[in-house]
Amino acid sequence: MQTIKQLQILVEEHLSEKAYEEEPIALFEPMTYALSAGGKRLRPIMVLLATQMYGGNLKEALKPAIGLEIFHNFTLLHDDVMDNAAIRRGKPTVHEKWNDNVAILSGDAMSIKAYQYIVSCKEAYLSDVLQIFNDTALEVCKGQQLDMEFEEREEVSLEDYLLMIRYKTAVLFACSLKMGAILAGAEAKEQKELYELGINLGMAFQLQDDYLDVYGDVSIFGKNIGGDILSKKKTYLLIQALKQADETKKERLWKLLNDEKLKAEKKIQEVTDLYNELHIKEITLKSVAEYLEKARRNLENLKISKEKKQELEGLICKLENRNA
Amino acid sequence: MQTIKQLQILVEEHLSEKAYEEEPIALFEPMTYALSAGGKRLRPIMVLLATQMYGGNLKEALKPAIGLEIFHNFTLLHDDVMDNAAIRRGKPTVHEKWNDNVAILSGDAMSIKAYQYIVSCKEAYLSDVLQIFNDTALEVCKGQQLDMEFEEREEVSLEDYLLMIRYKTAVLFACSLKMGAILAGAEAKEQKELYELGINLGMAFQLQDDYLDVYGDVSIFGKNIGGDILSKKKTYLLIQALKQADETKKERLWKLLNDEKLKAEKKIQEVTDLYNELHIKEITLKSVAEYLEKARRNLENLKISKEKKQELEGLICKLENRNA
Repeated sequence: MQTIKQLQILVEEHLSEKAYEEEPIALFEPMTYALSAGGKRLRPIMVLLATQMYGGNLKEALKPAIGLEIFHNFTLLHDDVMDNAAIRRGKPTVHEKWNDNVAILSGDAMSIKAYQYIVSCKEAYLSDVLQIFNDTALEVCKGQQLDMEFEEREEVSLEDYLLMIRYKTAVLFACSLKMGAILAGAEAKEQKELYELGINLGMAFQLQDDYLDVYGDVSIFGKNIGGDILSKKKTYLLIQALKQADETKKERLWKLLNDEKLKAEKKIQEVTDLYNELHIKEITLKSVAEYLEKARRNLENLKISKEKKQELEGLICKLENRNA
Repeated sequence: MQTIKQLQILVEEHLSEKAYEEEPIALFEPMTYALSAGGKRLRPIMVLLATQMYGGNLKEALKPAIGLEIFHNFTLLHDDVMDNAAIRRGKPTVHEKWNDNVAILSGDAMSIKAYQYIVSCKEAYLSDVLQIFNDTALEVCKGQQLDMEFEEREEVSLEDYLLMIRYKTAVLFACSLKMGAILAGAEAKEQKELYELGINLGMAFQLQDDYLDVYGDVSIFGKNIGGDILSKKKTYLLIQALKQADETKKERLWKLLNDEKLKAEKKIQEVTDLYNELHIKEITLKSVAEYLEKARRNLENLKISKEKKQELEGLICKLENRNA
């Protein structure tokens, strides 16, 4: 069994071979730029983990795994245009470094590249692989659409928020694990259980993201703390706070968020204090723990030896303890 | 054998079933809007024509055929954002009617929908279908990239221009015919000949587009005549004119194109006069005729009965005589 670390190296090595340097350069350079910016490579690692759990061939699964990483980076590239984000992983975003047109078109080319990688699997698995990937890719678009719509809305229900992050984040985790299982010829029931595991892990992951934006350690997190508060982003924390607060506190929260004159630092501090009063930290961590607990139950349900589950269990632990 | 007209009705009927009305509405409404704007539906018709030429099942080929139409409209949608085009087929473009973000994201969703349609072919053909489609889709992106780069360049060689329109227009024609042949189980040599036919037909089609923008009948063409002249677009006509002109005429041409004070009508007239002096009309029509001649030779080379070639021959004639 390869460790997570070993699989990550495998992915990085393949990505650094830079298979994207074709003509016209301007179309493919942003692709290489985006893919070389690092990141956790969680999705391809999940494909490979699931594949080796069922005795599949890692070499055969590598290209589809890379395909999911390319797809993920394509969505980030277009999301950054739509959200007008300037920085991604500490570097200027593609539309900042080049321009919007470059980001749109090289993103389009990336999504096709993703398909090229994904369909280079064994022909016997092609149909199943495409079914789950196409469904997932469309859901990821739905997630981004809902995310943008929520920015315009006054209030967002917890239910709607959870659906949005399911689409935007969790389904691609789920797709990764399921695809790995498909590529190893695992049976349908196992594929389904792994899919659910991915959903639960993805939900936990996204709630952690929201959590770390407020309670993370700035020196480790890599982004400035409180960004979501300053942009009034409807995160799990804000939605829970609005749900827990009485009318007085709700009013105070909105007043703080809308106060254009309040200094950034003070605004973050006061909103965080209010979150603390409302026990938002505990509520969020509890929800993360519940999703991780569900993921562990999914893992237990898999009909393979404990030994074979070890690396995926390790990934769950790693994500549980993440602070960046 | 179904006629072109009958196949077009088949395509329109399927498109008007509006299979795209899912939640969230804002993601799928622009898709329906773009696809209901009409157009010639050349690409799906070509898929179906090629399929029936080789005795394939039209019903089985319909979804992949529609997939190519969806893909084509996705590229138009993103191109219109990048080119900042306001009108498409007489209606406001998606980014005009909604906004850029809607056009980007619903375009992304459309491209995935296109894949969903395309991969709903018989499993035996899936691998070949995806191979030609992925290669083609990436080339279409390359074509758009070159097209944008040419806008910035001082001069564009005829060779570069022909490569650009090959990517931007001809390869999708070629892919359509080849895909139809694949879906009917035609042999590789026939697929290749049909692919070449599509390239030649596509090249002729794009040169006609350039031609009609200057020499078309405004009441039929649907766009204002001379738009390419006013925007100094490096069309086949302009590139040929610059190639044919001596230094004096070349200078006159640039002076006219760059004259910001000259009235639009007069500018179009004077550039057209200069084109006429340089026999650009004849040169362009000759090139169109040559590509169509090549396409007819490809048709002749196909190893099927004359009767079976009839409808595709009809399409070539139809395009030969098009004025819109």
